[in-house]
Amino acid sequence: MQHGIALTVVYDGTHFAGFAQQTAQRTVQGVLAEAAERVCRHPVTVRGASRTDSGVHALGQVVAFATTRELTPQRWLLALNRYLPDDVSIAAAETCDPEYNPRFDARDKLYRYVFHMASTRNALRRAYTWHLGRLVPRRRGTLDLEAMRRVCAHLQGTHDFRAFRAAADLRENTTRTLLRVELIESFQGDADLLALEVHGSSFMLNMVRIIAGTLVDVGRGHLAPEAVLALLGETGDRRGAGQTAPAHGLTLVAITLGRLSEPASR
Amino acid sequence: MQHGIALTVVYDGTHFAGFAQQTAQRTVQGVLAEAAERVCRHPVTVRGASRTDSGVHALGQVVAFATTRELTPQRWLLALNRYLPDDVSIAAAETCDPEYNPRFDARDKLYRYVFHMASTRNALRRAYTWHLGRLVPRRRGTLDLEAMRRVCAHLQGTHDFRAFRAAADLRENTTRTLLRVELIESFQGDADLLALEVHGSSFMLNMVRIIAGTLVDVGRGHLAPEAVLALLGETGDRRGAGQTAPAHGLTLVAITLGRLSEPASR
Repeated sequence: MQHGIALTVVYDGTHFAGFAQQTAQRTVQGVLAEAAERVCRHPVTVRGASRTDSGVHALGQVVAFATTRELTPQRWLLALNRYLPDDVSIAAAETCDPEYNPRFDARDKLYRYVFHMASTRNALRRAYTWHLGRLVPRRRGTLDLEAMRRVCAHLQGTHDFRAFRAAADLRENTTRTLLRVELIESFQGDADLLALEVHGSSFMLNMVRIIAGTLVDVGRGHLAPEAVLALLGETGDRRGAGQTAPAHGLTLVAITLGRLSEPASR
Repeated sequence: MQHGIALTVVYDGTHFAGFAQQTAQRTVQGVLAEAAERVCRHPVTVRGASRTDSGVHALGQVVAFATTRELTPQRWLLALNRYLPDDVSIAAAETCDPEYNPRFDARDKLYRYVFHMASTRNALRRAYTWHLGRLVPRRRGTLDLEAMRRVCAHLQGTHDFRAFRAAADLRENTTRTLLRVELIESFQGDADLLALEVHGSSFMLNMVRIIAGTLVDVGRGHLAPEAVLALLGETGDRRGAGQTAPAHGLTLVAITLGRLSEPASR
C-alpha cells in the first residue's frame, strides 16, 4: 500500500546547484531522495513545491513523496534528519495523499531578500546577504528608501511582470499578483541589514532577484521610480529593469498550501 | 620607519583551528599575517587581543601589527579585505603605536552564546547556534529560564571561577569579574533562539562555554541553581559544573580597549 508524506524543508543553498535534481550535481531534491530511499529501501520520487535557483536558501520549502514504508510523521522527521547532510533539515512532516504534488497545491509564496548595506564586507554576513558595498552612495551612506518604498507599493497588485523575468523563462502568461512587497529596515536588529519581503501567488524565473536588483538601482538613484513603473505592462522590457541580484541573498520563507489534494489528517 | 595598524576583525570560525597561529593549521592569525604580508612585502607578526578557540566566531576581535609600509587606515582596510579569504573581514582600521599589543590593552570583552531550542535541527541555524534538541525538556517544551536567570545574576560580580575553566588552564589567579551575565529571549526575533551575553574583564580557557553548558543543565533541571552557586569560590570543582558547550555557538562580540599605548589619532 502506498503512503504519502509531505515535508517542510529547510536548506542552506550555498553548496547546492539548486533544488531540482540534475545528473552529477548536488541538488536538494537529490539529497532528499537519497535520504528517503535509505529509510524506504525502494526508489523515491521527491516532488517539490518550488524549484529554487542554485544558491537560494529555504526556511519553508514543501516536498512530498510516496512510499510503501509505514511510519508516523514524527518518525519520518527523526529518520530523515538523521540521514540528511547538515545543510538540509526537516522542520515538519505530515501524511498526505500518495499522489499529492505540492507544486500544484502551492497557493502563494513568501520570499525574503536581505541586503547588507555597510561599505565593508562582513565575514559573518556573507552567506545569506548581498553585500552592496560601493552600490550604496557614499555621500548619503544609505539607499533612498523612500523611492524604493514607492516602487514597492506600485509592484503590489496584479501586473504584467514580463520585464522582471529571466530570458530563459518562456511561459506565455506573464501576469502575476504580488500581495505584499515590503522593505524592513534594521532586519534582525542589525542597522546594516535591509530586508525585502515579496509575497505573491506565483513567480517567474529570477523574478524576486530582478525586483531586488531593480530596487537597489532605484535606491542608488540610477533608476527613477517612474521608469520602473513604466516597465509594468505588455511593453515592459527586461533591459529596462535592474540587474539580477545574486542568489545567496534570497530565502524562500514559506509556502501557503491549498490542500486541494485532501491529505489525511496529521 | 615602523608604523602600527590596529584592526577590528570579523570571522566565521567554522573552518579555522582557532585564532592562534599553529604550524600546518588554518588559523585566523595565520591568514591575517599572510594577507598583511602581501600588502607589506615583508614578514609580519600579528598580535591579537583574544585567542579564541577553534570554531569560535568573532564580530569584534582586535589585532595589530607593525609595518614599514605607509598607507592610510582606509587603504589598509580595503587592501586587506581584498586579500583575505571570505570568512575573515576587516570592519575598521586605525593607526597605533608600532609596539601596540591589544592583548595587554583589552579592558573587557563581550561574548555571546546562542542556543537553538527547537526539538528538530535547522540547516540554516547550524553554523552559529548550539542545537539543544533533546536537551530541552519535552514536557515543558522550554528550559527553566527563571532558574537560569537566577544563576546568571549570581555569576555577576567578582568570584573565584576555578570551577568554570578547562583543566588545561593552569593560571594561578582564578578570580574574575563578570560585569553582566544576561539571557535574551527571541534573539534576532526568532522565538527558537536564546542568547547568553557575558561581559567581563577577563576570561579563562573555555569559561564562557562552561557557563553556557552549566546554564543548560540548570534549565533542564539537572543541576540546582544552589549547586552552581556553591561552585563559586576556592572549593569550586570543575566536575560540579556542566558540560563545555560546543564552540560554534560562541561569538566574541566586542572588546573594550584602554588605549594605554597612546595610539596616534585616527
